Amino acid sequence: MNPDPPRLSLGVDVGGTKVLGLAVDSTGAIVARTTEPTPTRSPAENLGALVTEVVARTITDLERATDGWAIDAPACIGLPGMVRRDGVLAFAPHLRGAGGLDLGRTLPDRGGRPIAVRNDADCAAVAEQRRGAAVGHDNVVIITLGTGIGGGVIVDGTLLRGAHGFAGEFGHMVIETNGPECPCGARGCWERYASGSAVGRFAREAAQAGRLEGVVASAGGDPEAVRGEHVTAAALAGDVEALEILDRVGWWLARGLSNLVASFDPSCIVIGGGLSQAASLLVPAANRYLSDLLEGGRSRPSVEVVTAAFGPDAGAMGASLIAREQR
Amino acid sequence: MNPDPPRLSLGVDVGGTKVLGLAVDSTGAIVARTTEPTPTRSPAENLGALVTEVVARTITDLERATDGWAIDAPACIGLPGMVRRDGVLAFAPHLRGAGGLDLGRTLPDRGGRPIAVRNDADCAAVAEQRRGAAVGHDNVVIITLGTGIGGGVIVDGTLLRGAHGFAGEFGHMVIETNGPECPCGARGCWERYASGSAVGRFAREAAQAGRLEGVVASAGGDPEAVRGEHVTAAALAGDVEALEILDRVGWWLARGLSNLVASFDPSCIVIGGGLSQAASLLVPAANRYLSDLLEGGRSRPSVEVVTAAFGPDAGAMGASLIAREQR
Repeated sequence: MNPDPPRLSLGVDVGGTKVLGLAVDSTGAIVARTTEPTPTRSPAENLGALVTEVVARTITDLERATDGWAIDAPACIGLPGMVRRDGVLAFAPHLRGAGGLDLGRTLPDRGGRPIAVRNDADCAAVAEQRRGAAVGHDNVVIITLGTGIGGGVIVDGTLLRGAHGFAGEFGHMVIETNGPECPCGARGCWERYASGSAVGRFAREAAQAGRLEGVVASAGGDPEAVRGEHVTAAALAGDVEALEILDRVGWWLARGLSNLVASFDPSCIVIGGGLSQAASLLVPAANRYLSDLLEGGRSRPSVEVVTAAFGPDAGAMGASLIAREQR
Repeated sequence: MNPDPPRLSLGVDVGGTKVLGLAVDSTGAIVARTTEPTPTRSPAENLGALVTEVVARTITDLERATDGWAIDAPACIGLPGMVRRDGVLAFAPHLRGAGGLDLGRTLPDRGGRPIAVRNDADCAAVAEQRRGAAVGHDNVVIITLGTGIGGGVIVDGTLLRGAHGFAGEFGHMVIETNGPECPCGARGCWERYASGSAVGRFAREAAQAGRLEGVVASAGGDPEAVRGEHVTAAALAGDVEALEILDRVGWWLARGLSNLVASFDPSCIVIGGGLSQAASLLVPAANRYLSDLLEGGRSRPSVEVVTAAFGPDAGAMGASLIAREQR
């Protein structure tokens, strides 16, 4: 419909450790890429101002890297936290000190063009549904597994935002009311059972009980030093006890997904995020368990659980697509 | 936009015990009402055929009761179960034997006009958001509390249906993975904790432990005979132990609602259904507990929990509104 679609659009993903910028053309091809470390807080500084600076530099770098073609390109920024519908970062447990950041106002003016700001998992959801693992599905749930669990939902082709912009925050969905405490204050949040931290927690419990010898050895011999990465590496190498840990996490993943299927009725669920190195083990397990955990199991069409297509680029890619659609 | 809006539309709600039909005018006023008992299954009969018969008669009765004005009126039928997007009843635990019912095909032709069919709680959600307790809110979750828990969701003003029509089935959302068994096969479903059955279950446990004397007396002296109704009646009369039971159910209600807030980010939650006699006690309790149970609690706008406006008419009223919008 648009007589003059933008040749390029810019997507920036502010992650826990790095800020990724992509300039993407109308076919979805990445024509420029920049990376910088995410600023960390030092007490005297305003983290929001530091984030603004890095994002502004990322945009300038993308403009430069594309010989200036990107100067007119619409842009969207993905942030790791709860982003209000007006673009203000309301709450960011993994970017503490940046709460209240309003990039639409703090970023340098780009010819009056509005800057879209979204939750990072929402960006990933758009990327996977428009051009990734969920192409052809109009109702999609995406889960990003990292230290915690992020989420995004596409409803009839449109990103679900909610009244305030906070829809799809699945990490603290409670699935075991009397379960272990979560830093958020509740007990039994899904991310205690089905995230990178959960893999580490289950493994340390097993290690303290004298199991997981190979994994403990790979962590330097200290059961307390076992992290999710050690378990994933061992499992991918065929360690039976490590495989059992991931199978258990796969069950808990399916347990939470069953709640999301009951709520949203998607036809496709995409698993992405940093833990997706383990996806070749977790995704089959989740598929195996999910259909038995659904109410009306056999009366309903099965839901496909698939691995994200974009890996670590998903957030920035999705942001570039949102930027294009916002114009 | 429509140059000739229908003067009347018809809504039919097939409930657990009765079939309610309403003819509603364009201002939302009810101009005719019919009620019949819901057919129950006898082994030799086809329950779907019996339901079709009652619904057809309900429509004819409404046409007659409006002196024939309703003969052209669009109609929608709400059913207690999982209704596919094409209107077929896929799964109905409370109307077993009617699975596969396709009212769009089995009902007598009404001049070629399509018959809309929806889940009953979805109908209630539309009623409350368009003309009831959630007017002015675009993002709404409705919970119907009865023997179980039904649900409906409005997203940016539109009923959420999901890929297959099964969105909003919250009763079997698992909130306590190792909790008590549910007839559905899972453990710890929300409706084990926050429904009419849950009130009865908690009360029988307390009664067997020697408490709730007044309630047990009102149930004829047998702890096993205590039902939710006895508890609600005693609580409304000021019985302290009965009030404690409902407060506990209010907490579990809020525990599940916190998951729905994290998922959907509504600005308003409506509590309806048969248990809403207890709403004057449950809704304040849920409001009191909910804000403390939300992740990012104080950083996010509070969500209002309110009592449904339409009571037992909600399903049929919503169906009449959906019929009007479907034209």
